[in-house]
Amino acid sequence: SKLKNYQYGNRGMTLEEDLNESNEYYLANKIAVIHKKPTPIQIVKVDYPQRSKAVIKEAYFKTPSTTDYNGVYKGKYIDFEAKETKSKTSIPLQNFHHHQIEHIRQVIACNGISFVIIRFSTTEEVFLLEGRFLLQFWERMENGGRKSIAKDELVQYGHQIPLGIHPRIDYLKVIDQIYD
Amino acid sequence: SKLKNYQYGNRGMTLEEDLNESNEYYLANKIAVIHKKPTPIQIVKVDYPQRSKAVIKEAYFKTPSTTDYNGVYKGKYIDFEAKETKSKTSIPLQNFHHHQIEHIRQVIACNGISFVIIRFSTTEEVFLLEGRFLLQFWERMENGGRKSIAKDELVQYGHQIPLGIHPRIDYLKVIDQIYD
Ligand SMILES: [Mg+2]
Ligand SMILES: [Mg+2]
Repeated sequence: SKLKNYQYGNRGMTLEEDLNESNEYYLANKIAVIHKKPTPIQIVKVDYPQRSKAVIKEAYFKTPSTTDYNGVYKGKYIDFEAKETKSKTSIPLQNFHHHQIEHIRQVIACNGISFVIIRFSTTEEVFLLEGRFLLQFWERMENGGRKSIAKDELVQYGHQIPLGIHPRIDYLKVIDQIYD
Repeated sequence: SKLKNYQYGNRGMTLEEDLNESNEYYLANKIAVIHKKPTPIQIVKVDYPQRSKAVIKEAYFKTPSTTDYNGVYKGKYIDFEAKETKSKTSIPLQNFHHHQIEHIRQVIACNGISFVIIRFSTTEEVFLLEGRFLLQFWERMENGGRKSIAKDELVQYGHQIPLGIHPRIDYLKVIDQIYD
């Protein structure tokens, strides 16, 4: 696909906020049911005060073993990870955890629809890259190649998503194009 | 389906442990990628001690807005809730939250495969009931009818799942039968 200038000024929204808004739009219009998974927490200590609700007093963040978002669209399983970078030219692969890559591999093996949504925060350009391409770039790194995906490569192998008002990031339109 | 006596003595496993083991089996054999969602937590206070990892010092359990488990099987979206009851004759509908029912409705509207897995802990009988039937029993309650699903009704509308060794609860075999 070709690189276009879709952004309309910094709106101060994070990628996660934009995606949550888009998912709410899909849900309200019965288009898809896609949610962000809760952050996995290791709970160590919980207080149960009388007459009030339980308070977690000690807990730790766990490394997520899957991607951030999943759900259903036209009966199909949808699974994606969202990443934002301040770099202007590439997305570093260190942004992905090893077990997230493994999860993407497993989802593809079971015929799920797997992709990543990448945002360049300085320009607000947003790209969708299918999981099968991410796995190829990951393999290139493991074979001693570059440790990032160039924006040019996202233009070539991925799909730029125009920013909208409602939904803000209409990534399912890209999925329709790919799986048509 | 008919009621059978599949249990082989109390093994002291919870339904969640049995389902996690079954999901690990599916994953290891590339049959399906199905995970339990993390418990949603409202984080209020986090400490960032120098040279060690962040400690959550105050947090609260949030009511889950979706079901417990989801994932992909043969490209299809799979979504289910697991419930255990000590009752010998029925599963109380108060075990389900209102927004879980709403979520099941949304998943069905998007053609996802939705069901609940119910275990009677005293006898270890396990049933799979499709989401569309759960919605009917829920509606019956809202129309002033009984506030539970009788075990007899699970036998009639659902599917008893034989307990196995590996996987312990082979619920995807039932899904194969239903969607064949
Ligand atoms: Mg992320
Ligand atoms: Mg549950």
